[in-house]
Amino acid sequence: MAFLSDIEIALQTTMKPIQEIVEDLGLTDESYDLYGKYKAKLNVRELDQLAERPNGKLILVTAITPTPAGEGKTTTSVGLADGLSAIGKKAMLALREPSLGPVFGMKGGAAGGGYAQVVPMEDINLHFTGDFHAISAANNLLAALLDNHIHHGNALQIDSRRITWKRVVDMNDRQLRHIVNGLQGKANGVPREDGFDITVASEMMAILCLSNSLTDLKEKLAKIIVGYNLNAQPVTAGDLKATGALAALLKDAIHPNVVQTLEHTPALIHGGPFANIAHGCNSVLATKMALKYADYCVTEAGFGGDLGAEKFIDIKCRMAELQPDAVVLVATIRALKMHGGVAKSELGAENIEAVLAGLPNLERHLSNMQETFGLPVVVAINQFPTDTQAELDAVQAACQARGVDVVISEVWEKGGAGGVALAEKVVELAERENHFQFAYDLEDTIEEKLNKIVQKVYGGEKAVLTPAARFEMKELERLGFGNYPICMAKTQYSFSDNPTLIGAPTDFDVTIRQLKVSAGAGFIVALTGAMMTMPGLPKVPAAEGIDVDEFGTITGLF
Amino acid sequence: MAFLSDIEIALQTTMKPIQEIVEDLGLTDESYDLYGKYKAKLNVRELDQLAERPNGKLILVTAITPTPAGEGKTTTSVGLADGLSAIGKKAMLALREPSLGPVFGMKGGAAGGGYAQVVPMEDINLHFTGDFHAISAANNLLAALLDNHIHHGNALQIDSRRITWKRVVDMNDRQLRHIVNGLQGKANGVPREDGFDITVASEMMAILCLSNSLTDLKEKLAKIIVGYNLNAQPVTAGDLKATGALAALLKDAIHPNVVQTLEHTPALIHGGPFANIAHGCNSVLATKMALKYADYCVTEAGFGGDLGAEKFIDIKCRMAELQPDAVVLVATIRALKMHGGVAKSELGAENIEAVLAGLPNLERHLSNMQETFGLPVVVAINQFPTDTQAELDAVQAACQARGVDVVISEVWEKGGAGGVALAEKVVELAERENHFQFAYDLEDTIEEKLNKIVQKVYGGEKAVLTPAARFEMKELERLGFGNYPICMAKTQYSFSDNPTLIGAPTDFDVTIRQLKVSAGAGFIVALTGAMMTMPGLPKVPAAEGIDVDEFGTITGLF
Repeated sequence: MAFLSDIEIALQTTMKPIQEIVEDLGLTDESYDLYGKYKAKLNVRELDQLAERPNGKLILVTAITPTPAGEGKTTTSVGLADGLSAIGKKAMLALREPSLGPVFGMKGGAAGGGYAQVVPMEDINLHFTGDFHAISAANNLLAALLDNHIHHGNALQIDSRRITWKRVVDMNDRQLRHIVNGLQGKANGVPREDGFDITVASEMMAILCLSNSLTDLKEKLAKIIVGYNLNAQPVTAGDLKATGALAALLKDAIHPNVVQTLEHTPALIHGGPFANIAHGCNSVLATKMALKYADYCVTEAGFGGDLGAEKFIDIKCRMAELQPDAVVLVATIRALKMHGGVAKSELGAENIEAVLAGLPNLERHLSNMQETFGLPVVVAINQFPTDTQAELDAVQAACQARGVDVVISEVWEKGGAGGVALAEKVVELAERENHFQFAYDLEDTIEEKLNKIVQKVYGGEKAVLTPAARFEMKELERLGFGNYPICMAKTQYSFSDNPTLIGAPTDFDVTIRQLKVSAGAGFIVALTGAMMTMPGLPKVPAAEGIDVDEFGTITGLF
Repeated sequence: MAFLSDIEIALQTTMKPIQEIVEDLGLTDESYDLYGKYKAKLNVRELDQLAERPNGKLILVTAITPTPAGEGKTTTSVGLADGLSAIGKKAMLALREPSLGPVFGMKGGAAGGGYAQVVPMEDINLHFTGDFHAISAANNLLAALLDNHIHHGNALQIDSRRITWKRVVDMNDRQLRHIVNGLQGKANGVPREDGFDITVASEMMAILCLSNSLTDLKEKLAKIIVGYNLNAQPVTAGDLKATGALAALLKDAIHPNVVQTLEHTPALIHGGPFANIAHGCNSVLATKMALKYADYCVTEAGFGGDLGAEKFIDIKCRMAELQPDAVVLVATIRALKMHGGVAKSELGAENIEAVLAGLPNLERHLSNMQETFGLPVVVAINQFPTDTQAELDAVQAACQARGVDVVISEVWEKGGAGGVALAEKVVELAERENHFQFAYDLEDTIEEKLNKIVQKVYGGEKAVLTPAARFEMKELERLGFGNYPICMAKTQYSFSDNPTLIGAPTDFDVTIRQLKVSAGAGFIVALTGAMMTMPGLPKVPAAEGIDVDEFGTITGLF
């Protein structure tokens, strides 16, 4: 059987005019703006009108610890939403926007796959409605204002060795990681060490995604710390009088984007912070809107349950006062085999022992969702042709022992029809009793929070702070940030801080090397190692295969 | 009398839905895409359908040599188009898009002024439909692919000391002018000297603006020279296999944007290359479309007639096979007085002698339009309250002596009603005999072209090439670029290459310091001095005064 590529499937589909989708939600002309025929922005101020309307159910899709075998979280999310639509439920997706960097680098697109995609996938994967460009512009205006302030006399006495605000570009560009700028004399700035991050790793992105309104956005922007002055006091965007101009640049980006799945389920795709260095979820506003317009909002958090889901709950849900009703934990037989020690090249052969050896990873994620966070959970196996019944049975047995159901998802191949079983299970699950709780309290000390995450989510012994991190912790407490939530920056490939410890490692400590505050976004970033905030392109970048014909039709996006 | 600010006037206006404006042009739903309610993109492929339709008249608005007193070229263009509409003609504007850099820096917005504006001015001045972001992304993808190629073994043997392709940001950011990047070891690129330009100074911008179709765009992209290899041969974007991905990033940006004036005249606002380092005109496609949809296309070229108009004619019209039908030369009494030697602080007082002393500047521009380029011309005086009748009479007399009419424009205060007299004159002028010609032939040698521009347009003696420029000239001839047109990069403040020589200097040489090819755009840039390709922010940037309220309404844009 010859498979079509994602873009081929996407381009074969007849989309509905987005106007139709939006008006089905009950929105009038005043409340949305078209961006072409198949994209629109919904005005966030609609939320004020809908305050009285009850929320739908919030369904979180997360996954086991990622492996090179792939899991298919976005595909499962899209297929689940289509499955819910197929059984007559009013469903809506809330997903992240893709970054241009991975599109032209290694990963390709990020709009689902097979027959479970959001469309127009080529637009979503390229500029979409310009949100990331707006975020980059706001980020870089702040950087320009900062260096300009220093250039023109530095009235705020900013210490140019302690500037924390970096410029960004939404591109994989390793050449910009570490630079020296302001060179060639007095007219051209003040020489200093600097560097660029990718836009999705920026605090500006996190701020947009955690804002509850334009007013809230402005408050967060004003609090951004761009660096420290010679008296070790923070200097903020507000001090630079930048708040209004930054908000002006973000005034359209704050409105969630609506598109559709291949089966015309509405999808809000908005914001896209990295899940390692940032919190890894779509915008609060998109999630809130989806909960108002639909009975089931299906949303996804980045990477595995230890990273994306933990931050979804402890940061996003806490700040936005949201509560998940059910969790879908995505796994593949192939990935479980890798956690069981099988090499990628050997994944085609049946290997029940390896599945069993990999199951502890799945089980720890399950107990995190059930016990640590108190949420009902179902396991979705994203099926591959090489999966055998005996392998599937092994997973089934292990989960049944914990009282958790396993559902086979065939959405990649069959779209919503392949997600009906999962949808039905999710509907049932969302009605169950729910003992939702956070992994830590804001009132805990920074060290207590770190320890609770390591113990209750990662399954490790404790958090060990380096002397530098301990000094930073004291500084953050001195500056009044002690009660902020923690945004863990950790490898996605292990429960621990060591990417080679796959499966379900035990008896490990997590070393905290650096603590820094994102005062605008409202969290403390805890770095457990060298986090990649600017990826590079591979030797043969995906860009080489991308093209567009005279009619504007894109090829080579996958 | 209290004047309203531009944004106040703009926000008081009731715009028509852009759909209405577009459908009045005879376009159907298939041929345009909405970007919100008041912006749209017209599909360039419409031009294929309209090949048989006769072109309207092409009216070029240019100006005397700029002074700090300001001239009001965009305001006059907008008012002229509204004046043409007012007398029952089908008129359309074709203008450049503003850059974010000046908006947050010194200049403020660039969408006309007073009652002669294009709207929604706050959108036009901010992200608009994202064209400049797309151009920046394409520019920076090419840079990332280039450095990535070197990082991964440099199969093309690119000489890292001879890389000519710079990264861009659409921001005034002097700190990025001169940098060293690729620092901190083997994993992070290859250290080299580098720097950023502002997006509007990039060849990518020039390419978009000079393309006749998406196919033509791809041909131009493939030819971009990013640097030279160790054998001194050019390395192109095509060699890096970047063409398709770059075109994919530009597939929407190539479609002209349509908005409206305060009086609902349709305006195509598309592309915006700098007029000093680049060619300074809106896109070829916008101009061509306006000529198909309207009887009068009013377009503007950057800076004074020596820079913008010369390049409009010798580069844009030549490449696009366009022919202007009439020229409007904008002047102010205040600016003429400055050319006559009066300080800015003294401009309020009547000073006929200064007007007379400044007139040679106007007269040289007139003779350029009439004799060098063979075009009918009218002088538009953009009126200020301090202008006296005696001063206006002095201009009138001088122009009459050359057979040129002078019309007073009151469009800033009165909108289209204040532009009726100018409109009537332009209609008459466009029917006159026209001896259109270029300042030089492509077959002339590079040096002959430079001399013809200096002699026939600037009124100088000759072009003097530095030894370095002479060497570069030989190289460009060797590489086969000898028959490209010339894009002069010269100060806008003088006919000469010395910005302090205001008025109409004579007996001067123009020193050519550098010659480089923009092989994709298709011209040779001749630099006469240090051209600013990355502006800085002033001590108190306009950004500090810009704000947005909870409803998304912008204030502080001017």
